[in-house]
Amino acid sequence: MTNETDHLLIIGGSDAGISAGLKAKELQPDLEVTILLADDYPNLSICGLPYAVGREVADWHALAHRDLAELTSTGIKFQMSTVADRIDPAKHEVQAHSRTDGEHKVYQYTKLVVATGAQPKLLGITGVSLATTQQPASKVSVLHTMADYFALERDLDADKVQHVAVIGAGYIGIEMAEALRHRHMNVTIFQRGAEVLSTVDADLGQLLRQKLVANGVTVLTKTAVTAIEATATTATVIGADKQAYHFDLVLIVVGVQPNTKLLVQAGAETGIAGAIKVDEHMQTSLPDIWAAGDLVETKHRLLGTTYLPLGTTAHKQGRIAGYNLAGVTRTFKGSVGTQVLKAFDLIIARTGLLAKEAAQAGFVPLTTTVDVDDHKAYYPGAQKIKIRITGDRNTGQLLGAQLVGHFGSEVAKRNDVFAAAIFNKMKVAEVCDLDLSYSPPVGSPWDAVQLAAQDWEQQQRQLLK
Amino acid sequence: MTNETDHLLIIGGSDAGISAGLKAKELQPDLEVTILLADDYPNLSICGLPYAVGREVADWHALAHRDLAELTSTGIKFQMSTVADRIDPAKHEVQAHSRTDGEHKVYQYTKLVVATGAQPKLLGITGVSLATTQQPASKVSVLHTMADYFALERDLDADKVQHVAVIGAGYIGIEMAEALRHRHMNVTIFQRGAEVLSTVDADLGQLLRQKLVANGVTVLTKTAVTAIEATATTATVIGADKQAYHFDLVLIVVGVQPNTKLLVQAGAETGIAGAIKVDEHMQTSLPDIWAAGDLVETKHRLLGTTYLPLGTTAHKQGRIAGYNLAGVTRTFKGSVGTQVLKAFDLIIARTGLLAKEAAQAGFVPLTTTVDVDDHKAYYPGAQKIKIRITGDRNTGQLLGAQLVGHFGSEVAKRNDVFAAAIFNKMKVAEVCDLDLSYSPPVGSPWDAVQLAAQDWEQQQRQLLK
Repeated sequence: MTNETDHLLIIGGSDAGISAGLKAKELQPDLEVTILLADDYPNLSICGLPYAVGREVADWHALAHRDLAELTSTGIKFQMSTVADRIDPAKHEVQAHSRTDGEHKVYQYTKLVVATGAQPKLLGITGVSLATTQQPASKVSVLHTMADYFALERDLDADKVQHVAVIGAGYIGIEMAEALRHRHMNVTIFQRGAEVLSTVDADLGQLLRQKLVANGVTVLTKTAVTAIEATATTATVIGADKQAYHFDLVLIVVGVQPNTKLLVQAGAETGIAGAIKVDEHMQTSLPDIWAAGDLVETKHRLLGTTYLPLGTTAHKQGRIAGYNLAGVTRTFKGSVGTQVLKAFDLIIARTGLLAKEAAQAGFVPLTTTVDVDDHKAYYPGAQKIKIRITGDRNTGQLLGAQLVGHFGSEVAKRNDVFAAAIFNKMKVAEVCDLDLSYSPPVGSPWDAVQLAAQDWEQQQRQLLK
Repeated sequence: MTNETDHLLIIGGSDAGISAGLKAKELQPDLEVTILLADDYPNLSICGLPYAVGREVADWHALAHRDLAELTSTGIKFQMSTVADRIDPAKHEVQAHSRTDGEHKVYQYTKLVVATGAQPKLLGITGVSLATTQQPASKVSVLHTMADYFALERDLDADKVQHVAVIGAGYIGIEMAEALRHRHMNVTIFQRGAEVLSTVDADLGQLLRQKLVANGVTVLTKTAVTAIEATATTATVIGADKQAYHFDLVLIVVGVQPNTKLLVQAGAETGIAGAIKVDEHMQTSLPDIWAAGDLVETKHRLLGTTYLPLGTTAHKQGRIAGYNLAGVTRTFKGSVGTQVLKAFDLIIARTGLLAKEAAQAGFVPLTTTVDVDDHKAYYPGAQKIKIRITGDRNTGQLLGAQLVGHFGSEVAKRNDVFAAAIFNKMKVAEVCDLDLSYSPPVGSPWDAVQLAAQDWEQQQRQLLK
């Protein structure tokens, strides 16, 4: 347990940092907790930015999971606009400076949480750097911080901005394409790979692409971007084939990398993708220093250690850190890679592993796909959900699921039934043993997830004959 | 394994009987399978009848899970309008008669499945019997068979039928009240207990009652019905307080009891509520006789053996019987009492145990309730879901959940996440370890089910301090 002079310092005021601080303070009310925040926007739902851009959320202030009054009412102290420059593990201190007045300051700690998250990757695109995206006149944007968001909004509001390129067709790229369509922009998505949303199988990505195209988005797949040439009023995207595409604005959302500079300088061990190594209590290799969120390696229940930055995981890891900081032992149980995307009226969800990922991990995958009704077809409004199951053909273990269906068909929470089953290491066949909700307007006597499991079982039996 | 002269005979063509036949035939295509059906409507979704009455389903034929062509294409033979009168376990034969021409017939079997389901209870209401409800001119109805449905439709179409009483405020009673409101009838529900839907806590039942009342249903709770006095044109309901209520039509839906006559006469052992005892393979105490569905005792994963007739369970038990009949050993893993009801735009779901049921079963229940958003409040359309969790305050085991929310808020499948957690004997705290789907339009970084679990954890911690 900690003593009364304990001072918990947290670098970072997003998902993981706030979660750690709130849980530690809740469990140990006399703990002094200070959060250093590089900007002035604590606990903001960054995942909500596309909806602010798309004007489905009228005021970005609404994106705060909790507002500052609620946060400070817990007794946690916030140091806004304060950038941590260096951690000294031996002295148990953090050197920082204020972005407002440049003043340098030193913060002592008995325990430290580093939750600096991730930063946008630019994939070696020539002519652009994180620094250039942040210049006021830049026509090239990223979308990772509130500063990025304000800059993007200013650019979108500029005269004559009509043609926008989105580089990257991952979750945020697709959400941003939709958002920009809501803003009546002309939108082109560039995707290096053969299909959009490479985190699901290509034929499911194709369904998503059709949805994007049907909603007026131009989708260019197999189109790597090698350079961007920006002027004060335009930005030209140069493809690997040297072709030039002209836009008023370019948004780069090709993924993130762990923001590890502080901890690496302090001597912390790193692992996959350069992310910080942590134990199951979220403690780093450095004494009295924890880390959680997008800068750390993630335990995956099927893959072992991996790097998989997700907001849900950041919240969980931060909370686990908070428990342990307050002297309550608790371990991070691991991700199963659950993700969901809404694109217009389509929902695409996945959990666990794709067949190719399962094979790489040493499983012997069998993958089957069905189109099943979300509820009894005779009750009005029934919609098909495409459900793909991957299981190990020898052991029968459920390894993964992918679902594509309509918004309003309980697709996300059906994905979560699979997620719960994978978490518990169930066999595909055991999904049919689950006692799931049924009433004709919301399900079937065998729920859609069980019909998919039965189909998998049947195909496995044929194979093993 | 079975040999080529095997003949599987099934009595009953609803959920359990059809499931058993289909699975056995699929696994052992050379098996001769005959299903004796008391009427002409195999594999009909009886749960769909309220929606046919309410005209949300235009044609009752649509209620068939599979039509006769699909069923017979499997090679299963159907003997329609054939009533089984007696089982002779020693001779391995079933004596039956035709409802069409009265002809008596004897069916030999090597294996027999009895899936005769349940029959309506009348709770000792004077002046009415199952026989009287089936007289053509009866103004008192039940709703359990297609014959009941046809009779009810005929009665509802009669001149001047406007005031209808529904006796019983369980799932079917409430669905029928809604259906009759869709038909512009004046509807009164009589409920013996203090609140409607006694399968959930009374304060949640109250929310449902408010919804019924708001939609024009008269709800009389604490109003036991002791007698019904019916004439050719009216039916008078007599309450325990001797008060008389006059209606054009009365529908009695106060629950069901196992339809065990055939098996009891044959000497099968019975148990709770008089239901047939079966082992985990769904085999009765009689040689070569299986039983599945609403006439058998049900294994409950938290309660041991109980009687809990549900369509989902009947499907599962029938399928398990089918596996074992075909020589593939498989066991029924047990119910957790999952149920869901749609009433107008309200969804009420439960799984596991209520606090009082948990206490009766020897647990030490702690029950907590939260109102949480179905998705991030900043994204349009967010709705509150009331989630109540019951766990064992000493062991932390998750014992039950009740959810009340809006149709379209993924309430049913959130209930199923709890159902999967209970099935896997998870602790309440472990629900927070699940990696669940998040995107602002469909969830939160901590899903609603996890926010409920966190609240439970917090209250447990306070209690144990």
